[in-house]
Amino acid sequence: MRLLTCLAVLGLAFASPADAKREVVARVASPGDVLTVEIGLDEGRADYRVLRLGEEVIAPSRLGFQLRNAPKLERNFILAGQRQADADQTWEQPWGENRRVRDHHRELRVRLRESIAPARELELVFRVFDDGVGFRYEFPDQPALKDVVIDDELTEFNIADPATAWWIPAGEWNRYEYLYQRTPVSEVSQAHTPMTVRTEGGLHLAFHEAALVDYSAMWLRRVEGQRFRAQLSPASEGWKVRRQAPFHTPWRTIQVAETAGALYQSSQLGLNLNEPNALGDVSWVKPAKYVGVWWSLHLDTETWATGKRHGATTANTRRYIDFAAANGFRGVLVEGWNPGWDGQWFGNGWDFDFTRATPDFDLAGLAARGKPDDVHLVGHHETGCAVSHYERQLEAAFALYARHGVDQVKTGYVCDAGQIERQDQPGGPVLREWHDGQWQVGHHLRVVREAAKHRIAINAHEPIKDTGLRRTYPNWLAREGARGMEYAAWGNPPNPPEHEANLVFTRLLSGPMDYTPGIVSLQGRGQAVQTTLAKQLALYVVVYSPIQMVADLPENYARQPAAFQFIKDVAVDWEQSLVLNGEVGDYVTFARQARGSGEWFLGSLTDEHGRVLSVPLSFLAPDTTYVAEIYRDGPGAHWRDKPFAFEVERREVRAGDTLNLKLAPGGGQAIRFVPRTP
Amino acid sequence: MRLLTCLAVLGLAFASPADAKREVVARVASPGDVLTVEIGLDEGRADYRVLRLGEEVIAPSRLGFQLRNAPKLERNFILAGQRQADADQTWEQPWGENRRVRDHHRELRVRLRESIAPARELELVFRVFDDGVGFRYEFPDQPALKDVVIDDELTEFNIADPATAWWIPAGEWNRYEYLYQRTPVSEVSQAHTPMTVRTEGGLHLAFHEAALVDYSAMWLRRVEGQRFRAQLSPASEGWKVRRQAPFHTPWRTIQVAETAGALYQSSQLGLNLNEPNALGDVSWVKPAKYVGVWWSLHLDTETWATGKRHGATTANTRRYIDFAAANGFRGVLVEGWNPGWDGQWFGNGWDFDFTRATPDFDLAGLAARGKPDDVHLVGHHETGCAVSHYERQLEAAFALYARHGVDQVKTGYVCDAGQIERQDQPGGPVLREWHDGQWQVGHHLRVVREAAKHRIAINAHEPIKDTGLRRTYPNWLAREGARGMEYAAWGNPPNPPEHEANLVFTRLLSGPMDYTPGIVSLQGRGQAVQTTLAKQLALYVVVYSPIQMVADLPENYARQPAAFQFIKDVAVDWEQSLVLNGEVGDYVTFARQARGSGEWFLGSLTDEHGRVLSVPLSFLAPDTTYVAEIYRDGPGAHWRDKPFAFEVERREVRAGDTLNLKLAPGGGQAIRFVPRTP
Repeated sequence: MRLLTCLAVLGLAFASPADAKREVVARVASPGDVLTVEIGLDEGRADYRVLRLGEEVIAPSRLGFQLRNAPKLERNFILAGQRQADADQTWEQPWGENRRVRDHHRELRVRLRESIAPARELELVFRVFDDGVGFRYEFPDQPALKDVVIDDELTEFNIADPATAWWIPAGEWNRYEYLYQRTPVSEVSQAHTPMTVRTEGGLHLAFHEAALVDYSAMWLRRVEGQRFRAQLSPASEGWKVRRQAPFHTPWRTIQVAETAGALYQSSQLGLNLNEPNALGDVSWVKPAKYVGVWWSLHLDTETWATGKRHGATTANTRRYIDFAAANGFRGVLVEGWNPGWDGQWFGNGWDFDFTRATPDFDLAGLAARGKPDDVHLVGHHETGCAVSHYERQLEAAFALYARHGVDQVKTGYVCDAGQIERQDQPGGPVLREWHDGQWQVGHHLRVVREAAKHRIAINAHEPIKDTGLRRTYPNWLAREGARGMEYAAWGNPPNPPEHEANLVFTRLLSGPMDYTPGIVSLQGRGQAVQTTLAKQLALYVVVYSPIQMVADLPENYARQPAAFQFIKDVAVDWEQSLVLNGEVGDYVTFARQARGSGEWFLGSLTDEHGRVLSVPLSFLAPDTTYVAEIYRDGPGAHWRDKPFAFEVERREVRAGDTLNLKLAPGGGQAIRFVPRTP
Repeated sequence: MRLLTCLAVLGLAFASPADAKREVVARVASPGDVLTVEIGLDEGRADYRVLRLGEEVIAPSRLGFQLRNAPKLERNFILAGQRQADADQTWEQPWGENRRVRDHHRELRVRLRESIAPARELELVFRVFDDGVGFRYEFPDQPALKDVVIDDELTEFNIADPATAWWIPAGEWNRYEYLYQRTPVSEVSQAHTPMTVRTEGGLHLAFHEAALVDYSAMWLRRVEGQRFRAQLSPASEGWKVRRQAPFHTPWRTIQVAETAGALYQSSQLGLNLNEPNALGDVSWVKPAKYVGVWWSLHLDTETWATGKRHGATTANTRRYIDFAAANGFRGVLVEGWNPGWDGQWFGNGWDFDFTRATPDFDLAGLAARGKPDDVHLVGHHETGCAVSHYERQLEAAFALYARHGVDQVKTGYVCDAGQIERQDQPGGPVLREWHDGQWQVGHHLRVVREAAKHRIAINAHEPIKDTGLRRTYPNWLAREGARGMEYAAWGNPPNPPEHEANLVFTRLLSGPMDYTPGIVSLQGRGQAVQTTLAKQLALYVVVYSPIQMVADLPENYARQPAAFQFIKDVAVDWEQSLVLNGEVGDYVTFARQARGSGEWFLGSLTDEHGRVLSVPLSFLAPDTTYVAEIYRDGPGAHWRDKPFAFEVERREVRAGDTLNLKLAPGGGQAIRFVPRTP
């Protein structure tokens, strides 16, 4: 690290005359005095800078906007006012990784005003936590700026120390379904958020946004060196965002933590920056496991389309309902249940009918069959990206489902990025929008709000990224937004052993993912799943979602009764969650306490390298003996040539004990801790 | 990590025909099946290979010797026999970081025989632990090989995965007193051991040796890529080692662990490979803190030489004895107490007299003064590298000290490397030996054994590196063998903030270091010490030694009474030691339980970067409330411009609590946990 110190010293010594004009006009420190944010004005241009324990983390970074039909909102600023406020409150999540979330921050509001006509004003709001910073722009109500058409947001993120990045490309043909790349930050092109970064000094950062409402998503475009600029996802009209003042932007967030594990924990910042629950009583939102007609479709042994191999038949669905009932799973997803799948539906979903089933699918009868066992059908709305077409059926579609006890719907938007089809009036022109542009951002909330009226929860696939809106709309249970398990079936390349160790510290920083684990057959379509059997179990603890699919075929679970037992036992809703260890892209271990029971679960997984991880069981309650049900890789296990080597052990443990977790290459370990009743 | 996987696969696919001739003739796995060692024969040339959980860690690496006046002992080998044995025993250290040490390994002995005349035999012994491997060569008693003159040991270490190394150069003018470099392994030239390595996959390795007796030290010379060969420190005669068969070499050790913390813990392997205590009752070996006439010499306010500024005067020493007595410190080191310091003693110590004091130093009177308070003078034997001259006085010198209650002696060998002066008979020619060649290795043991006869313990400076011989000779208390605190006084460059975070995971893997911390004045000779005040306290817990100097001037402690309290309270001998977190060269946190008391101590330190470390206190006893006396960096603390920002807090804690340690850039934190009596 010595070289860096020297460079920093040199940097100081040779500070350019330009820098000397920068004046710090406001400053705010986090409650524990860990992070500090400075607001600077450099000849009227506003910037911010973030320091941690006195060291620069984000070098001065520009703020402002390029507007349409109006001068840039970025120069000639003077400070018109500032104020600070402290906040420290703890709130409860109806479901989640942690029941209680502490929101402890200090807020700085800075009012900027142009020193020349039209003297427009812009307010900056920074909330500074010990483990991260969120900031947003507020456009006040003012005569000189009513109709705000944003051509570019000029917000920058100038990473101070040389760093490595984990990222996926933004603005490309696919949505978020790329393998994560690990490169020097200086080799990133344009990335989706969350983008995760580790400096040479070992500090972990993640860049993302919170409360993305009526705005377009922020991509991070590298301008030069380690300096990024917000690149907003464009609208079909050419601008990026159109709003009427007063309004505010989403929060831009920077998580800052010592270790990979602490970075994961710092993600609560994103929830804290969202508005509280807007739905009132949400006891009808049910975290649960579900099965369904799904993996067979990706194996291509059954089809979405009707015909001989149609998966969504009454008979086949009965089989899944009985399987769910027999094993205590609440949901049965059925894809391909409705008309519209028989043609070219990919990116062309105008034939989808969401208000009736295909003739071979008895919706009412199947719903009734599950009822005695509290087994519910999970609805499915694939749009094929004909989104306006879907919206026009929305109310009727949810009403139909609600009548049949369906209280959870998986939505889908399968098409290339930028091909969301928007038709403002029937018969009018079809505009093409990005999956993460302002219009589609609005669509997702329209669906979630409409669903809430019918007491239905949403699990969006090919979604907009998660920005913590589950706090405000707790019926937004989960989503996809990364390469899920289906890539193990047919991906080229398939998901590699490091995939989930990347996801945890990137995609999963943003919120729950419906990853659909549990492929105990370890077999895709002509290719092997690149994990061991034990790792499939670990995924239920590691990859957080309040809904977890039991994704393999019932007959495959029958062949793995020992492993299946863990899948039956594992909880989906948590009192608290702890990251016990981990490195981005390498390995991670979680311990999670089940909500409403004294049980704990541990999940640990690794990339292509075997690991031996020493884990003190200090999270267990003191003075309590637990029976640990340990599901682990067996002797010689290896994802490539011995993935089924697997063993189960039961033993008594206590809080003072330490376990050595031995993970095979591509392996994992899952443990259930059951308190022994005295 | 995906690239690496692909390369490994390619490597397999394109295995060269040459490799195909290699035959694995023996194989042994560690008790927990984590590490596996294979012994190969490739057209009669022996090698070994190390795998971890099925993955190659050390690629096939050559074994053998180049001999003088005899054919190379490295080709034409056939397997003459092999056997395996299990070991699992726990033994006690009279003092140390951990009272109990578990030795759990599987041993493989492989007998090799030349297939052609002279049909010499060589035995390989591998001890395989879950966290490391030790191996040595045994030369059996055989007619064809009696007088063994080793020109080169051909042992290789071929690191399989791309890795980063932390290392200091070997075979250079200085001894071990270099700043640690961090480079790609492929840029190491020739390194001393321990050399620490972290692979791109995150695995931590350390290469060292154990039980270096009657042999010369091993350096690691990089041959090409990531392949290293043993380079033995040479003897003045030109060969490297001369022995009579039967004999065996020291153990070559490879520690292998997931994390930096686990790497540190795996160092017990080095102790396990040493022979048990050879001294019998060693209750006279006393772990303790000591003060002395030392820092003033490095500040150049006092001198070793006699004259106006002579430090080792009776009056000055009385001051230190009284200071020790008043504060509960056991030892008072006095450097410059004997004749020989007045001329050019550096590398020219033939004038040193170890059997009498200078006229201004009343040895007997000072010894008597300390006696009522159990304060003992700590002896000092600086040789100036006239080592034969010293050896001739050894017995008388120790006898003198023993008569005056001195039971600990600091030895010194100040000269450039390779300038140890050996004179086999008085008046004979003077040969120049390396600090770590076979002759000087023998010298150190002659000193330790002679000292033991007088019930004196040894603290060697400018020493041979530590190879775990403290197990066999528990009077070998500590040593230097790296850049100590004196470099903070006058080093150019001084020890940087990352220095100790490097030492912990390199030099300190080998054993205790007399680092001489506690410079609460933070002031050297015209330059500042590059730590905060709190970090000076943390060093007492982090940098292990059973003897810890309280190294600053008494008047400086008087100015820092709050910090001084911790130095008075901190233990030096431990029931157990835990590494709570850490990264090589970045930061580390230790918790250590004092021996013979229920107290725990925590020490945490960082490099030039500030850190926030979350530390669960799960090491504390359950059901016990402790008073935590927390000594930490204060608001805005920074090693460069605010090193004295410091605060002390007392609060009650329990095992279920978690502390957030906030460390300033260049900072640290020290905590004493005192069980509250109910």
